[in-house]
Amino acid sequence: MDKNDFRDFLKQLTEDRVHGASELSRQCLQIAADSALHGPARDPASLLSLLEERGLQMAAQRPSVAPLVNLLARWRLQVSELKDMALDDARWQAAQLAIDLMQLSRNAVRDVAAHARELVGEQKTVLTHSASSTVLEVFHQLKESGVRAIVTESRPLQLGHRMLAKLSEWAIPTTLITEAQMGLFVRQADCVLVGADSLMPDGTVINNAGTYLLALAAHDQGVPFYVCCESFKRRGPDMGQPVLDEGGGAILGAPDLPHVTAANVCFDLTPAWLVTAWITEQGTPPGRHELHLD
Amino acid sequence: MDKNDFRDFLKQLTEDRVHGASELSRQCLQIAADSALHGPARDPASLLSLLEERGLQMAAQRPSVAPLVNLLARWRLQVSELKDMALDDARWQAAQLAIDLMQLSRNAVRDVAAHARELVGEQKTVLTHSASSTVLEVFHQLKESGVRAIVTESRPLQLGHRMLAKLSEWAIPTTLITEAQMGLFVRQADCVLVGADSLMPDGTVINNAGTYLLALAAHDQGVPFYVCCESFKRRGPDMGQPVLDEGGGAILGAPDLPHVTAANVCFDLTPAWLVTAWITEQGTPPGRHELHLD
Repeated sequence: MDKNDFRDFLKQLTEDRVHGASELSRQCLQIAADSALHGPARDPASLLSLLEERGLQMAAQRPSVAPLVNLLARWRLQVSELKDMALDDARWQAAQLAIDLMQLSRNAVRDVAAHARELVGEQKTVLTHSASSTVLEVFHQLKESGVRAIVTESRPLQLGHRMLAKLSEWAIPTTLITEAQMGLFVRQADCVLVGADSLMPDGTVINNAGTYLLALAAHDQGVPFYVCCESFKRRGPDMGQPVLDEGGGAILGAPDLPHVTAANVCFDLTPAWLVTAWITEQGTPPGRHELHLD
Repeated sequence: MDKNDFRDFLKQLTEDRVHGASELSRQCLQIAADSALHGPARDPASLLSLLEERGLQMAAQRPSVAPLVNLLARWRLQVSELKDMALDDARWQAAQLAIDLMQLSRNAVRDVAAHARELVGEQKTVLTHSASSTVLEVFHQLKESGVRAIVTESRPLQLGHRMLAKLSEWAIPTTLITEAQMGLFVRQADCVLVGADSLMPDGTVINNAGTYLLALAAHDQGVPFYVCCESFKRRGPDMGQPVLDEGGGAILGAPDLPHVTAANVCFDLTPAWLVTAWITEQGTPPGRHELHLD
């Protein structure tokens, strides 16, 4: 991957509001592996310098996407230890490390999904918001269990539509609703299951805007609110306060009028007290407050 | 207005999900006045019978829109007392009664708006959901006061767009948001101000879907949640539980897939404990629980 292709990827990464945090992280690791194998370098030192730089650049595009930052940081640390290798060995090894981390991420999602499936149980109705690849995997694992889905549109990108094709293919009875109807439909659900872009050290969930409203409604109606969040999604205390990305209001399609602007903040914060359980690779921590103590 | 025109109006009334409760009520009273003046009748008895029937038919189209039901019931009662008049006098009088009720409704909206204006105060940011003609009137009265507006899209009909042209014309700085962002923007507001389709005897607010979520967020963030509701919007205890109309899911534009359906329930219920104050023609009842005791 040469300089221009990498620059194009960074631009695409910055603007991508469609893919979830886990998927984006693996995309970056794929680019990391490709850079390791094919990036311009004369010797091991220049290769390691290039990979360090590209790892940092990718993380800098999406500082609020914790798994992307965390997995790339782990990869950079591992790559920095290859400095005594021959160039071709270092290339191969750095690529393999990135691929291993992709697999680690996939395994984490698979394990989270397996724990979520147990937690949801059979013959249940699950309401979800946004389009989490982990939640989709849970539906996949539950498709023979009589599960039913309630999926929000997730305006303005209609992310919910991304889920529908798969849910339909798996013959899961699915109801699509507007975000406005979340309060009406949450009472028809046995639980709410969402993914997360990142998790604050205190258990606050950063996820697509609207998640907080859904959590408030679930809490008010006594419906369990579960968050799928593999450990890579944890923000370190050093990451500070998250930046909630503004995706640009033009996509709302508002009429162009003086004094009127459209806002499109992509994420909101759901405080820990609204979360019934966080589902990690290890399952669900035994108590509500355990997560941020481990 | 002949039989066919009236039938067309009933159809339009049934399907109208754009106009608020006050506006719909006045449309019906306008049709009532027109029926009084031009409806087919040979004598006073057949006129009164026609008007009684048309009043009942209009109310039956939208039984959950309390002001429409209430104002038409009041008109039918008044009209029933005209039985000793000559035909032309009865026509004129019945029309005048409908026009007086339209004026009463307009005055009520004006008084509610004046009280709301006082409650909001100067230099404030007001968040609203759906498109209430009363809330629009409040913005109109506040336009010289430095008011700012945050308006939701109000999917799927984009009712929020109906507000934008006026707010822009009045040079009120306005931010359009998706419903999903209500939880993010409510903290930027000094208060939330919404209309109501109807009010239950216990103070529960029936309004466009999403209102309940907004009320939960306002409550969680300590932002006052005000409901504009002239007295005609009160449902009598004899009206029972409201029917929450289904507007048809096709408008969501979901892909046509097996096992997938789209839902479009137009209204939700906001319980009284989430309401800071109900604003009536008389102002705000002194305490939260006064409203349903008067």
